[in-house]
Amino acid sequence: MVKVGIIGATGYGGGELYRLLAQHPQARVVAVSSRSYAGQRLGAAWPHLQGTLMYDEPEQVVATSEVVFLCLPEAVSMTLVPGILAAGKRVIDFAGDFRLPPEVYNKWYGHPHQSPQLFPQVVYGLPELWREQIKNAKLVANPGCYPTATTLALAPLAAHGLLGDDVIVNAVSGVSGAGRSAGLGTHFSEVNENFKAYKAGGVHKHLPEIERNLLRLSQGELARGRGKEGKPGAPPPAITFVPHLAPMTRGILATCYLRRDPVLSEADYQALYRDFYGGEQFISLVDEPPQTKAVWGSNRCQIHIKLDKHSGRLLVMSAIDNLGKGMASQAVQNLNILYGWPEEMAVSSFGIFP
Amino acid sequence: MVKVGIIGATGYGGGELYRLLAQHPQARVVAVSSRSYAGQRLGAAWPHLQGTLMYDEPEQVVATSEVVFLCLPEAVSMTLVPGILAAGKRVIDFAGDFRLPPEVYNKWYGHPHQSPQLFPQVVYGLPELWREQIKNAKLVANPGCYPTATTLALAPLAAHGLLGDDVIVNAVSGVSGAGRSAGLGTHFSEVNENFKAYKAGGVHKHLPEIERNLLRLSQGELARGRGKEGKPGAPPPAITFVPHLAPMTRGILATCYLRRDPVLSEADYQALYRDFYGGEQFISLVDEPPQTKAVWGSNRCQIHIKLDKHSGRLLVMSAIDNLGKGMASQAVQNLNILYGWPEEMAVSSFGIFP
Amino acid sequence: MVKVGIIGATGYGGGELYRLLAQHPQARVVAVSSRSYAGQRLGAAWPHLQGTLMYDEPEQVVATSEVVFLCLPEAVSMTLVPGILAAGKRVIDFAGDFRLPPEVYNKWYGHPHQSPQLFPQVVYGLPELWREQIKNAKLVANPGCYPTATTLALAPLAAHGLLGDDVIVNAVSGVSGAGRSAGLGTHFSEVNENFKAYKAGGVHKHLPEIERNLLRLSQGELARGRGKEGKPGAPPPAITFVPHLAPMTRGILATCYLRRDPVLSEADYQALYRDFYGGEQFISLVDEPPQTKAVWGSNRCQIHIKLDKHSGRLLVMSAIDNLGKGMASQAVQNLNILYGWPEEMAVSSFGIFP
Amino acid sequence: MVKVGIIGATGYGGGELYRLLAQHPQARVVAVSSRSYAGQRLGAAWPHLQGTLMYDEPEQVVATSEVVFLCLPEAVSMTLVPGILAAGKRVIDFAGDFRLPPEVYNKWYGHPHQSPQLFPQVVYGLPELWREQIKNAKLVANPGCYPTATTLALAPLAAHGLLGDDVIVNAVSGVSGAGRSAGLGTHFSEVNENFKAYKAGGVHKHLPEIERNLLRLSQGELARGRGKEGKPGAPPPAITFVPHLAPMTRGILATCYLRRDPVLSEADYQALYRDFYGGEQFISLVDEPPQTKAVWGSNRCQIHIKLDKHSGRLLVMSAIDNLGKGMASQAVQNLNILYGWPEEMAVSSFGIFP
Repeated sequence: MVKVGIIGATGYGGGELYRLLAQHPQARVVAVSSRSYAGQRLGAAWPHLQGTLMYDEPEQVVATSEVVFLCLPEAVSMTLVPGILAAGKRVIDFAGDFRLPPEVYNKWYGHPHQSPQLFPQVVYGLPELWREQIKNAKLVANPGCYPTATTLALAPLAAHGLLGDDVIVNAVSGVSGAGRSAGLGTHFSEVNENFKAYKAGGVHKHLPEIERNLLRLSQGELARGRGKEGKPGAPPPAITFVPHLAPMTRGILATCYLRRDPVLSEADYQALYRDFYGGEQFISLVDEPPQTKAVWGSNRCQIHIKLDKHSGRLLVMSAIDNLGKGMASQAVQNLNILYGWPEEMAVSSFGIFP
Repeated sequence: MVKVGIIGATGYGGGELYRLLAQHPQARVVAVSSRSYAGQRLGAAWPHLQGTLMYDEPEQVVATSEVVFLCLPEAVSMTLVPGILAAGKRVIDFAGDFRLPPEVYNKWYGHPHQSPQLFPQVVYGLPELWREQIKNAKLVANPGCYPTATTLALAPLAAHGLLGDDVIVNAVSGVSGAGRSAGLGTHFSEVNENFKAYKAGGVHKHLPEIERNLLRLSQGELARGRGKEGKPGAPPPAITFVPHLAPMTRGILATCYLRRDPVLSEADYQALYRDFYGGEQFISLVDEPPQTKAVWGSNRCQIHIKLDKHSGRLLVMSAIDNLGKGMASQAVQNLNILYGWPEEMAVSSFGIFP
Repeated sequence: MVKVGIIGATGYGGGELYRLLAQHPQARVVAVSSRSYAGQRLGAAWPHLQGTLMYDEPEQVVATSEVVFLCLPEAVSMTLVPGILAAGKRVIDFAGDFRLPPEVYNKWYGHPHQSPQLFPQVVYGLPELWREQIKNAKLVANPGCYPTATTLALAPLAAHGLLGDDVIVNAVSGVSGAGRSAGLGTHFSEVNENFKAYKAGGVHKHLPEIERNLLRLSQGELARGRGKEGKPGAPPPAITFVPHLAPMTRGILATCYLRRDPVLSEADYQALYRDFYGGEQFISLVDEPPQTKAVWGSNRCQIHIKLDKHSGRLLVMSAIDNLGKGMASQAVQNLNILYGWPEEMAVSSFGIFP
Repeated sequence: MVKVGIIGATGYGGGELYRLLAQHPQARVVAVSSRSYAGQRLGAAWPHLQGTLMYDEPEQVVATSEVVFLCLPEAVSMTLVPGILAAGKRVIDFAGDFRLPPEVYNKWYGHPHQSPQLFPQVVYGLPELWREQIKNAKLVANPGCYPTATTLALAPLAAHGLLGDDVIVNAVSGVSGAGRSAGLGTHFSEVNENFKAYKAGGVHKHLPEIERNLLRLSQGELARGRGKEGKPGAPPPAITFVPHLAPMTRGILATCYLRRDPVLSEADYQALYRDFYGGEQFISLVDEPPQTKAVWGSNRCQIHIKLDKHSGRLLVMSAIDNLGKGMASQAVQNLNILYGWPEEMAVSSFGIFP
């Protein structure tokens, strides 16, 4: 059994991660930490979890674990990771701290990165695209939820230079994407029976992460192990990204609007996606628009490609669970890759419906 | 008191209409009809309505009313309207039967229109744009819910020739938009905690209605009474329209992505909208992305204009209640205009929150 | 126009009250106050409200109003009311501060009442039971939401000495009943798709209010104007009251379990209720179990009486909107009574459905 | 691998069962049937399931399986079971057909049972109470959802003769409990933001099942293997059972009101429950009122015991997932017992939160 620890186990990402790992046949959560619940039992923060585990100090988690999951608010990981790596432990980080090159980070986050020297060894943990690199990683940056859904939706186009000069991503998330901190913006009475956009206008911090992923793909960076050598193509355009909040707990749907290639038919696009994702057990190409409920609680991503007969636009839609493939179960998938275990170990392949 | 009747009073549109008219100081619902509830009391179909009114035959509704509201499924109104007009009654029709020129109707609905001769006298009942024509109408085609939200969002641009060559409308509706007929697609367990697109690919029947509205505006057709002479401009492009279903009962949010004019600033656009809608009591230009809950139960439309700093796209969002401004309360507004009553009579100016 | 003011206009009760009063033909909101939004416009706290009104200081509200609505957290009203009454203004208080005799208050709230001397002049504002006293009141204690639903459900039994020796009230509320302050307990992700009891074990502060109402009724205290002279009967037993939280914004359902009288039939009970509430426009006796959605947004209370054929228990269920009849629209009804206006003025008689 | 089949795999019970069994290490679903989807792939009825399995005829399912799960509407199982047993297969039946003695069945269902001769060999599949009998069963009647929640809540009292003479069960279910057939009663728009009772008055068919379970327990019938010899006590009284519908997909909460024993303290009751359920991995005795979300998607039952200080009533609350412990995962637990596998195999011990 590999000993793993969770720093920040009282947020939604950490809680879901614990739930998944509790059923993992090869890994065992030996320690969890929480600033606010230190000294209390696991169940003090969660109505669904039980057991004798108690929240400890972060140092203790690092000391007792081989792999440390960091489920922390923005800008905390980057102060902790150097010490954890120095202690010889592997890190899977849920935050945005290591997903962007330091210079991009500094621009979008408005403060200087504290550990820019670590960036060269960071591996971005989106297994379907960069699996080979994850295998030997010491520091995995677990992708953001919107970037996971959007990148998986657009990767085949980016890798083939087919993104075109105009990409619009209309994205929708459930409320758990806002985290567990309470405020008017997550108050049931204000969010229920409501739908709205937020952070419109190109300001959401997941936007540069999406663009960086597409840039890498357009430059031919793909996991070699999968035999998919990308052909360098045109760099992706500046993306129009508008996130929305839907009155549901979990789920992300990305509806992407692209320029179509004048030569390719709908069937051509579908074949291209089938070829690109052939053999990927967590990716489903579906004939109908995907629904978030179909992937609820799972590590699955459903993708649908459609040519708009009326306007000529190419539509690509993808659905994931923001706390599943968009966060905790993708992190378990990354853990499985780190240790050479089957990727489906302790993650759910099917959504829970209804 | 003007006597009004409702044919088809057991669907969501008819029920909401009855509720509003029950508090109208100048109009009185004297008769309602329903095929399935004929002979039963109003409350047989509705848990919230009471009273001594009983569902009658459509003929009886026509005979006893001055104004007849038709709240019927697709393709029924067009068989009834000739007789109602011949009887000297005014009609406000909730269906799509009279919203499109017959040749467009035939193409999108897949069957020939039964009363094409009536089209020249149809008035499209979107008061903020064509109020003057409504005043003397005998036959008002009450707009669709998506077309109301989208047309109000884009009208100022269309009227000024600023739509550009590329318009994407990502629209989201609550479940009541699917009507009161039950099926798996409206089953709580399948729709709750779920989000998805439907009828993607340019096939929704509200799409030609939106395009026709924008075309009229681009051609300079505007209510003269408001002193707004439109300047004919470029016709609108084929629009990319993708409707989505959100887990809520009411509400429509249209997020529109447009090309910006290289000269106009965000403030210019906002000024243009303020000028265009100045004095319209049911239109609010808001500084934050609108939320459907803010207009819940009301006749209000909230509109927000934003320049995307990152991609250069122009974003326009609008929110309405699909059963309010998108259907029943807009119909009451039209009734008020027909009789010269204050437009706010018996409709709600404010949304109900929370 | 009567000038009214709202102190505490940024909570759900105050916001809903403003919305209703904005459409009142005889009253006008001239001032509102809020600690946190002082100096800002009405819309700063509300996405659905607009206008030029600005949040002011409480003193200003008192100075400019004839009637002052207090929509404040627990234990604040009792410090403000003496001054407002001394200024010659009438008060309608939303809090629990004046609903209980001081000695009962002290016991249940755990701190001494600050203005016990005012209690003799307090009128409890449940119009269907004590309308006559409200007419001349200076200080109206607007009832709590659970007490409104429960008292209306049980009043006919209490007034006829038929409560029996065992009363169980299983009550369910929407989340808005918890107020607008944010916390994990109102976080959408924790409350959605969830159902639970809270404050079980006889500790909810609405319990003594319910018992006091039933005691008064059992002692024959009823509005004389309605010609209903209650017959003093057995005092009510200690009530078992368990509140629950349902994943919805508004609504209260009280399911009451009572001992049946061995002589009375189900029809007898129903006749007794019909007689008791005959002529009350906001009370509906319904043949099916009431649903909260049928009274959503309204001032209505639906009541259903049923004999359990299997166990012999008497069941009484009542449904209200906790922010409507359970709070703001009942307050408007009280205002209307204070001034002799029709009680339905500016309140909704019908629920909004769906 | 044990070959299992599902007859009726397109309802919620059958779908959830398939999802669970798809991850079972010892059992394999070799055939599924559906009247309406015969000849189509599994995914035709489900957005979340995929694979090459196709819906077949029931006969084929029986022929190829060792264990047959019947997930069928009322009154169908009893016509199929004789043939399946005759073919030497084991049956786990989801319907109510074999849960009641034939004479009780006939009375509550209003038609004569078709296979009363089988009743002596039926084993009621509630493992925590009658595990030993399940081990050798040929025909397992999988319990109803309300009976599971209620029986587990009250079993310790019934087994100790402590039920008293008055038991009230106020039960609440999510909408999936109504099954997958669509109607106004499950239409999102009618159920969302709504709460109501249904089938009140002692008419729900789960009521005799609850009473039978409590009777057996009061008569000392308990699984011997657990070393729990029940002491015969007073038979349970006729129970007052009122089911309610909450606006959520899954979950059951039973709030039970009982007479307390004058000698026992709250701690005594809690000790009695701890002793009774000691070692049961799926039963949690919790210190706070249980919430349905804490057991969502799992095989867990949370139980809370509380003395109402005010009225002296004993309160017991229990929460389960109606499709989990209340149906499909309990069926898998039964399968595991049939074959001597660990009971937690392929069922979830923890709820999914949020």
